Amino acid sequence: MNLELALRMTEAAVKQAYREGARISVAIVDDGGNLVSFQRMDGAEISGPVLARGKAYTSVALRRPTSELPALAAADGELAGLAGAGFVCFGGGLPLWSGYGETERVVGGIGVSGGTIAQDVACAEAGASAWSGR
Amino acid sequence: MNLELALRMTEAAVKQAYREGARISVAIVDDGGNLVSFQRMDGAEISGPVLARGKAYTSVALRRPTSELPALAAADGELAGLAGAGFVCFGGGLPLWSGYGETERVVGGIGVSGGTIAQDVACAEAGASAWSGR
Amino acid sequence: MNLELALRMTEAAVKQAYREGARISVAIVDDGGNLVSFQRMDGAEISGPVLARGKAYTSVALRRPTSELPALAAADGELAGLAGAGFVCFGGGLPLWSGYGETERVVGGIGVSGGTIAQDVACAEAGASAWSGR
Amino acid sequence: MNLELALRMTEAAVKQAYREGARISVAIVDDGGNLVSFQRMDGAEISGPVLARGKAYTSVALRRPTSELPALAAADGELAGLAGAGFVCFGGGLPLWSGYGETERVVGGIGVSGGTIAQDVACAEAGASAWSGR
Repeated sequence: MNLELALRMTEAAVKQAYREGARISVAIVDDGGNLVSFQRMDGAEISGPVLARGKAYTSVALRRPTSELPALAAADGELAGLAGAGFVCFGGGLPLWSGYGETERVVGGIGVSGGTIAQDVACAEAGASAWSGR
Repeated sequence: MNLELALRMTEAAVKQAYREGARISVAIVDDGGNLVSFQRMDGAEISGPVLARGKAYTSVALRRPTSELPALAAADGELAGLAGAGFVCFGGGLPLWSGYGETERVVGGIGVSGGTIAQDVACAEAGASAWSGR
Repeated sequence: MNLELALRMTEAAVKQAYREGARISVAIVDDGGNLVSFQRMDGAEISGPVLARGKAYTSVALRRPTSELPALAAADGELAGLAGAGFVCFGGGLPLWSGYGETERVVGGIGVSGGTIAQDVACAEAGASAWSGR
Repeated sequence: MNLELALRMTEAAVKQAYREGARISVAIVDDGGNLVSFQRMDGAEISGPVLARGKAYTSVALRRPTSELPALAAADGELAGLAGAGFVCFGGGLPLWSGYGETERVVGGIGVSGGTIAQDVACAEAGASAWSGR
């Protein structure tokens, strides 16, 4: 992960937010889960700094899209009770993979918050495609 | 949000609590989620400073009545596992809106805790009407 | 401690703040260190919810005016390193005593923040005299 | 505070960092102390998300440059032991003022971390001039 790429991903996510009519926060973290960049659009909720960062961190920490977590973290799920301690267990966070086969690893994550879950996911995916097309 | 208005809302919430026979805590926060006023009635639980403030913060941070959150934050809800990180996900918190159309925005929140959820909601609504009638 | 008394103390502290030309936050806690009331004057700093409450808590927790703590908490003091974990170690917090002799005990605390230390102390003392004169 | 201005300030701070040969993180918060934007330059320390944000928050919460705090927060200073609870008490944070006279108020803050204190201060000042010249 580097700052230039993080900003390009953020730009793509924000562009998608305009298309969706949503006001979002976008967080990008590195492979250590530490924040690289954050932007909160004008008028976006103040929960963004907590939730967008939390989704980005969670997607790196668990190496999964956070949209997979509601089922896993449910009362009868494999990761019951996961929520809390910085893990955000609903859609809008995506891990960013690099390499192939044995060298494949998560090198960062993107988290989006502020719209509906569907909007957040769409914006995170738009951001992540800037990553895939890097 | 200003202190005079916050106190008027608090008074209205406390009056409702007397009608309900409940002993409550009432917290008012501004648009940044920072506390403006807090009152705990004699005999009300010591969880009030945490929960009433948390509900007021949550209602601003997510721009929703916290009474909408149990369904959303349930195991199979859209925001499964939201609780944590200062978010309180049950009834008793209301966002306070100002302006119309494009300039409409959340300028603060009220949170009530100490009674049953139904009582907390009724007291928060009583407080919020002092806001609407300002 | 009860709410009526807490509000009377708060009023006295705020009146003193007007005399001082300061904008303050005032917190009153009970003997358990739990918040009973809080008011932030219009235009007062957002650190008030943290510092005024912290001073009130600290003065109950250590049964001393917080203005005594800088010396005690200094690098070579008896309580070196006390600051942190919710203790605020500078002036503006006062414990509130009740009873005499063997039954004397701390029943609450007042904390003021937002002005200079001298102003905060003066406002806390004004609040505490409403307590003494109860 | 708005995002466009926050990004312009960030850009000015980062430009200064290049001149200084420093690798920094830059955080901008609004008047409620909530994050608006954050950027960590490639190779900058992972303490940036904590310290740059903490400096920006502290400068808003206390309405002072954080460079004034070491003297105040020293063992024999007026705010002895202030550090803790999210306050960062060394140089690199600046409050951003708006309005004049009675309407003058802090509308946000900038925090820089990653270089020496002198470099952090220089970068924060470069960012703040983008604010003054807005």
